[in-house]
Amino acid sequence: MSDFLRIGVAGLGTVGAGTVRLLQDNAALIRARTGRRLQVVAVSARDRRRDRGLDLSGIAWHDDPVALAANPDVDVICELIGGADGPALDLTLAALEGGKPVVTANKAMLALHGERLAGLAERRGAALCFEAAVAGGIPVIKALREGLAANRIERVYGILNGTSNYILSTMQETGREFADVLSEAQALGYAEADPSFDVDGIDAAHKLALLAALAYGVAPRFDQIHIEGIRHVSALDIALADELGYRIKLLGTVRYTEAGLEQRLHPAMVRKDAPIAEVDGVFNAVVIEGDRVGSVMLQGRGAGAGPTASAVTADLIDIARGIRFPVFGVPASDLLTVTSAPLSTHRGSYYIRLMVVDRPGVLADVAAALRDHDVSIESLIQRSRDPGNIVPIVLTSHEVSEAAMQGALDLIANSASVIEPPRMIRIEPY
Amino acid sequence: MSDFLRIGVAGLGTVGAGTVRLLQDNAALIRARTGRRLQVVAVSARDRRRDRGLDLSGIAWHDDPVALAANPDVDVICELIGGADGPALDLTLAALEGGKPVVTANKAMLALHGERLAGLAERRGAALCFEAAVAGGIPVIKALREGLAANRIERVYGILNGTSNYILSTMQETGREFADVLSEAQALGYAEADPSFDVDGIDAAHKLALLAALAYGVAPRFDQIHIEGIRHVSALDIALADELGYRIKLLGTVRYTEAGLEQRLHPAMVRKDAPIAEVDGVFNAVVIEGDRVGSVMLQGRGAGAGPTASAVTADLIDIARGIRFPVFGVPASDLLTVTSAPLSTHRGSYYIRLMVVDRPGVLADVAAALRDHDVSIESLIQRSRDPGNIVPIVLTSHEVSEAAMQGALDLIANSASVIEPPRMIRIEPY
Repeated sequence: MSDFLRIGVAGLGTVGAGTVRLLQDNAALIRARTGRRLQVVAVSARDRRRDRGLDLSGIAWHDDPVALAANPDVDVICELIGGADGPALDLTLAALEGGKPVVTANKAMLALHGERLAGLAERRGAALCFEAAVAGGIPVIKALREGLAANRIERVYGILNGTSNYILSTMQETGREFADVLSEAQALGYAEADPSFDVDGIDAAHKLALLAALAYGVAPRFDQIHIEGIRHVSALDIALADELGYRIKLLGTVRYTEAGLEQRLHPAMVRKDAPIAEVDGVFNAVVIEGDRVGSVMLQGRGAGAGPTASAVTADLIDIARGIRFPVFGVPASDLLTVTSAPLSTHRGSYYIRLMVVDRPGVLADVAAALRDHDVSIESLIQRSRDPGNIVPIVLTSHEVSEAAMQGALDLIANSASVIEPPRMIRIEPY
Repeated sequence: MSDFLRIGVAGLGTVGAGTVRLLQDNAALIRARTGRRLQVVAVSARDRRRDRGLDLSGIAWHDDPVALAANPDVDVICELIGGADGPALDLTLAALEGGKPVVTANKAMLALHGERLAGLAERRGAALCFEAAVAGGIPVIKALREGLAANRIERVYGILNGTSNYILSTMQETGREFADVLSEAQALGYAEADPSFDVDGIDAAHKLALLAALAYGVAPRFDQIHIEGIRHVSALDIALADELGYRIKLLGTVRYTEAGLEQRLHPAMVRKDAPIAEVDGVFNAVVIEGDRVGSVMLQGRGAGAGPTASAVTADLIDIARGIRFPVFGVPASDLLTVTSAPLSTHRGSYYIRLMVVDRPGVLADVAAALRDHDVSIESLIQRSRDPGNIVPIVLTSHEVSEAAMQGALDLIANSASVIEPPRMIRIEPY
């Protein structure tokens, strides 16, 4: 092995610039730990003139990222451009095709093209590493692929998007509504101008697809994930959840059931004293439940220049140490294509909030609809009597199938006394 | 690489039997993840006739563990005997000397002989792995050595002993005294008949020495750790801590200061809302603070057959995959021998409880002693006035050096009104 590991970095945004800076600042330390010099020798980004506060002297510049892959002086590619397709995918394909290892933080690309890329990487004998793609600086890919690899995984769940968690935590703390907190988060730079990827659950679902692949040796299938974002979570639901002993979190969950692989990403209620409920603000956390290890939780910063660069560089250190793992924990040709469990077969408890006109017989109608679908009620709150006006009815169910609950909700939604669509939030037994 | 990885297991106690069972039960899964068959071909334990509920048919038996290392059918040794010296050390030396990789859960052996064993392992080109030696099933060794290897480590701290944490958590919940809770834990099998290793901090300090080695590239130096156990933590201290907004945890901390490497293992007060404060019962947790990643916390089960076997087998999986890391994260010959920071240079806040005779002038004496050593008071509780009787005075200090605080406490202890040695607990800013 040569003393030098020569790195080409594509994309010099927050993460790319942070990675270059980390490799420069901690060069001596990384050399002590790997026995090699990790050196950025070439970069690619859109605007050559932009000041990124980086010393790029002596570093080759490529306007076209794909050219980076062809540069014979580059041993390994860091793809930090982002986006599922386009230049990121072109670069990754070109690098792997040429047998060059690729380190990427690109969850979207791997969630959509992971199976194909893993196959290519293995055929060409090149590493494809993505620690930075899930939960930023938290070494959760390594934990699943290696640290807990002796376990049959029973469930993986987590808070995978810091922006959403920040918004929900702030709503919880302040009692304010979603739109209000989102605007503030945008002003503070915690949320994007177009927040859809974060608050509609897409970013977190990309990550969940990768966790599922590692946990169960399946090809990532983003299109098989049931996704609901947090736009419909109201201050009232958060307050009622609190009263019932719960927090509302945007959780991704993957597990095997008799019906197949269940991949769900949606707001969920968890008991206030569950470790995951106490993870607030921009922090991420992942819980891995294994048949031997029990429950292991990892928490930390899921985004930002430093944490993401930490994960990118950890992958580079593995490569410098001559270490290579199967991309998704098993050989790409062995990745399973599994049946997805339809959401209708999910069994769990539910929180239901109805806005009803307060008149005689409403509760009887609701109770009848639930009874007709074998939904049994665990608790019910109907506090303020205000005849003729709109009041909330809140109930939680015992464990029941999603199909039964949906059937009951369809009936209830048709009642003339129920004046807006019922709100349903799944309760998780964590 | 051969299809088979042939494993010799020395020690068939809880962990050894658990490892054999895991390798049998999850054989297909582990084969899918490694492409190899991990097979126990030989074992060694003291009593051949004891029923361990294991199917050992077709597995060679060695009465002498050292013979296991010499068995030519064995590719890798699992040392699960325990004890810093004796057969565990003999076996490990023999195996490494013969170039055979060793996986061990033996924190005592590595804390005391780690430098020598790492050197031998590297000279002979054999892996020496110890994920199971620290925090059971939590993959914290992998996190420090690999997942966070890009970071300059600013501090590592953690709850490293489940028995002590269980006792402190139970004291907190029930208000009972240490001796009472310990007896119960012994009756329930959560604590050993001789609880010293656990409650006097020795076991946790062994683990801290290994975390320090990985975090800072230093040779493990158990003898340089300041160790205080939990025997002196009283129900009164726990109640007062609660009132002040703190929990008392047995924490190990390692960090670099200007004075050198600080390694401390002692009861500490942490803010109730700190993530580490919420880790209760037999759970362990480790927080790693890196210059890029910020704070990452890992929590899970720190002991028991399943979690420990999970970690032992993770190391075997690394070996099966042909992966080898420097034992303590850097080549053994590069391990630093560092100056330890004397505890007297530690700076922090302190909780002090004095039992005094309630008479005029006592508080003035205490205040004068503190003033004379430049210790400034942050808060003071002296609730019940009970002239002539014994009452507690409780105070917390602003940040001050341990030397100054000790000086003040020595003065205070000499006061005729102070009727038992002052109790001091360090407050950590987590």
